[in-house]
Amino acid sequence: MEQQQLVVLLKNIIKEDKRILTDKVDLYSYSYDASFGVHLPDVVVQPKSTKEVSKLMKLANQYEIPVYPRGQGTSLSGGPLPVKGGMVLDLSKWDDKLIVNHEDMVAVVSPGVLTADINSAAMNKGLIYPPDPSSSNVSTIGGNLAENSGGPRGLKYGVTKDYVVGLEVVTPEGEIIRTGGRTVKNVTGYDLTKLIVGSEGTLGVITEAILRLYPKPQATKTMMAVFDDIVDSGRAITNILSSGILPSKLEIMDNLTINAVEDYEPLGLPRDAEALLLIELDGHPAAIEDEIFRVKEVCNEITKEVEVANTPEEAAELWRARKLVSPAIVKVKPTKISEDATIPRSKIPHMFQRLKEIREKYKLNLVVFGHAGDGNLHPNIIADKRDEEEMQRVERAVEEIFQAAIELGGTLSGEHGIGTLKAPFMEMELGEVGLDMMKRIKEAWDPKNILNPGKIFPEPGQRLVLTNG
Amino acid sequence: MEQQQLVVLLKNIIKEDKRILTDKVDLYSYSYDASFGVHLPDVVVQPKSTKEVSKLMKLANQYEIPVYPRGQGTSLSGGPLPVKGGMVLDLSKWDDKLIVNHEDMVAVVSPGVLTADINSAAMNKGLIYPPDPSSSNVSTIGGNLAENSGGPRGLKYGVTKDYVVGLEVVTPEGEIIRTGGRTVKNVTGYDLTKLIVGSEGTLGVITEAILRLYPKPQATKTMMAVFDDIVDSGRAITNILSSGILPSKLEIMDNLTINAVEDYEPLGLPRDAEALLLIELDGHPAAIEDEIFRVKEVCNEITKEVEVANTPEEAAELWRARKLVSPAIVKVKPTKISEDATIPRSKIPHMFQRLKEIREKYKLNLVVFGHAGDGNLHPNIIADKRDEEEMQRVERAVEEIFQAAIELGGTLSGEHGIGTLKAPFMEMELGEVGLDMMKRIKEAWDPKNILNPGKIFPEPGQRLVLTNG
Repeated sequence: MEQQQLVVLLKNIIKEDKRILTDKVDLYSYSYDASFGVHLPDVVVQPKSTKEVSKLMKLANQYEIPVYPRGQGTSLSGGPLPVKGGMVLDLSKWDDKLIVNHEDMVAVVSPGVLTADINSAAMNKGLIYPPDPSSSNVSTIGGNLAENSGGPRGLKYGVTKDYVVGLEVVTPEGEIIRTGGRTVKNVTGYDLTKLIVGSEGTLGVITEAILRLYPKPQATKTMMAVFDDIVDSGRAITNILSSGILPSKLEIMDNLTINAVEDYEPLGLPRDAEALLLIELDGHPAAIEDEIFRVKEVCNEITKEVEVANTPEEAAELWRARKLVSPAIVKVKPTKISEDATIPRSKIPHMFQRLKEIREKYKLNLVVFGHAGDGNLHPNIIADKRDEEEMQRVERAVEEIFQAAIELGGTLSGEHGIGTLKAPFMEMELGEVGLDMMKRIKEAWDPKNILNPGKIFPEPGQRLVLTNG
Repeated sequence: MEQQQLVVLLKNIIKEDKRILTDKVDLYSYSYDASFGVHLPDVVVQPKSTKEVSKLMKLANQYEIPVYPRGQGTSLSGGPLPVKGGMVLDLSKWDDKLIVNHEDMVAVVSPGVLTADINSAAMNKGLIYPPDPSSSNVSTIGGNLAENSGGPRGLKYGVTKDYVVGLEVVTPEGEIIRTGGRTVKNVTGYDLTKLIVGSEGTLGVITEAILRLYPKPQATKTMMAVFDDIVDSGRAITNILSSGILPSKLEIMDNLTINAVEDYEPLGLPRDAEALLLIELDGHPAAIEDEIFRVKEVCNEITKEVEVANTPEEAAELWRARKLVSPAIVKVKPTKISEDATIPRSKIPHMFQRLKEIREKYKLNLVVFGHAGDGNLHPNIIADKRDEEEMQRVERAVEEIFQAAIELGGTLSGEHGIGTLKAPFMEMELGEVGLDMMKRIKEAWDPKNILNPGKIFPEPGQRLVLTNG
């Protein structure tokens, strides 16, 4: 359909003209995310009610217009990219509801609310919303729900999905359903809530979510342990966890990451170390005082270089190293290819070995850091997307990273999602039948393939392409 | 197909004749569970490998034979009942694999392993498998997975689903797939793991599971608080949880439950109390020492009658009251109708009020106890199924219990599942479209409706019937 015709129909649904965007400049703002590729939509709509979304989906079905729901576009895998044109649903403006119910320990939120704001509102009532993706200050809860975002606290607290107890969803055909509810326990039929969370906007548009909150831990404590040998750091992780202690964060940085940060801002990090672990404990003050002592003992069996932060300022100083990783590495070269291949914890040393081989084979800036406690590493390749030859090496390296993760019993993606980027590798992990069972759900729910088409499921012959960005 | 013909075909798949049961006496043993109704299967098969299950499902598809997977038959909702005859898959004999991997903190198990045995094996390595349905000493993990079983520890630790990271599954058409893996984080496509867990054996036969284990808490502490007014006990629950403390168990018993237990075995429980709470804390010894003191303070603002167990023996004595509930109440009359309607925590007092009205209206022995911390109450009606007039009152009362739970923003089932018993009420909770979205998944995965037909989805005109048992 012509854009003009479409706008006439949209005006019947969206009463304010300013919430229908058609200017080239506007469309361009919605053509990319934090991954690769530029795809212009035909129109952008900013719905602010469930009824509007329902009507938009019905219209889209009637005229077979692809629909791309979108939050703040921080996806690292292409989740919101309008790869087949059509209509972008910008849900980031719909942020009018953020209710914290203290008694039921839940928050009820609109899709456009920023994730960090939910945690702030909870904290005001002595509660927390635990999931903490690095983007939480800028990403919307709608996007976090679609992608099932993780974050450092995943080790102890799990991921976004673990906190969703109920949803309001507009189906691909425009019907409105409620899944789950306000109770943590619910086994009434299939768990549509957990099916829709993480389905990357392909099974429904989330218009409201009920999120479980937790009591706020009374104290936190941070330490750093430094290792000459990365295999030793893996042993330390296992020993800590099997000593009966579950840290709230357990992050790793490899030698190249340490040096990138030191080059960026000298913090006095050990440039010769092969790895360092940053460990945070939270809970009752008396408990973590004792636990940090025991974690130190466990680490000391392997390395003498263990530093405990005695004040919140010292703790903040240690975490600063981790926070600087992203700005530091993009100083080296402008293009960051951030992967999240995840392996069983026991395979961390093997994965480091494989990554080292891949780095040497393709002569790339490949640094590794991430959430070591749950095996969710972030191998990041630093390149320049204008250098086509280098980007072709990157493509091959990324493919080998995926292969390594799967061979080690892991998965393509721990927290970033499949989107467009990892779709070509789905069958490698799931097999033909596994992928087919997923496709059957998509086809049963969205027979005309209206909602976020071109994601998760590979197109025939599709392969990884990073060079057309 | 005739039984004899079927057995000939089955013998090609199952090499040992003794694993194919056709005797009337045997079939009768598989005709019931812990709910209502008797339904004879045509044949019972005891597979012990994934290949056997795959071949059985392919055979069943070819000849359109209903297949009913079954563990130990402890279901309270009719999950394994062979309501359309056909073939029962008795998976309880397949218990050869129970591997605890200490480094990855996972257990890999066959479907027939008893749930309590998984926890014991984990405990031997300093870990725990947290889900603790009351039946865990006799129920299989396969059944727990199919029904997404809960238990008292759900408040702090969640339910079965929260511990499943990977599955091997035979699809309704007999294909073998693996979902998830050994990693806690995994966002590679749709979350088939969490879709299959709790699908009551209608979407696949689980042939192996990878379960997440947790560090074993170092200590536990128990206390009891007694209340003159049940509304006060609800306030106490809210105040405890919002003080930043998350008990591992928070159980409630109402006046009738207390008196049933005292009649059964005098433990010195307060017969006049309207409710008592049993509270268990676990974690670091120093932390729970302090926390139990704070919980006592919080309770003392509402009631003076608070008792803390100072020794493990005293704690065991307090939990004995809770353990005796089931044997005590069936002493009154032989038939126990155990519901698990779950409401938001803040609605506990309202639910108690509604249950009181229902008890009076239908003149029934209706006692209430359960997992108050997460709103998962267990209203139990004690009746005699030989008394048809009484059972008709029970049916109407159960229907009103469901209505009350849904009106209060809750759900039909917190942990027992839908099965046959609650199927007639599904639309009341989910609406027509919500139920249809579930049905689409079932139809897409099991087009011939071979696997556990007659469950979850209501048959036309189906209503609650307890009188034909």
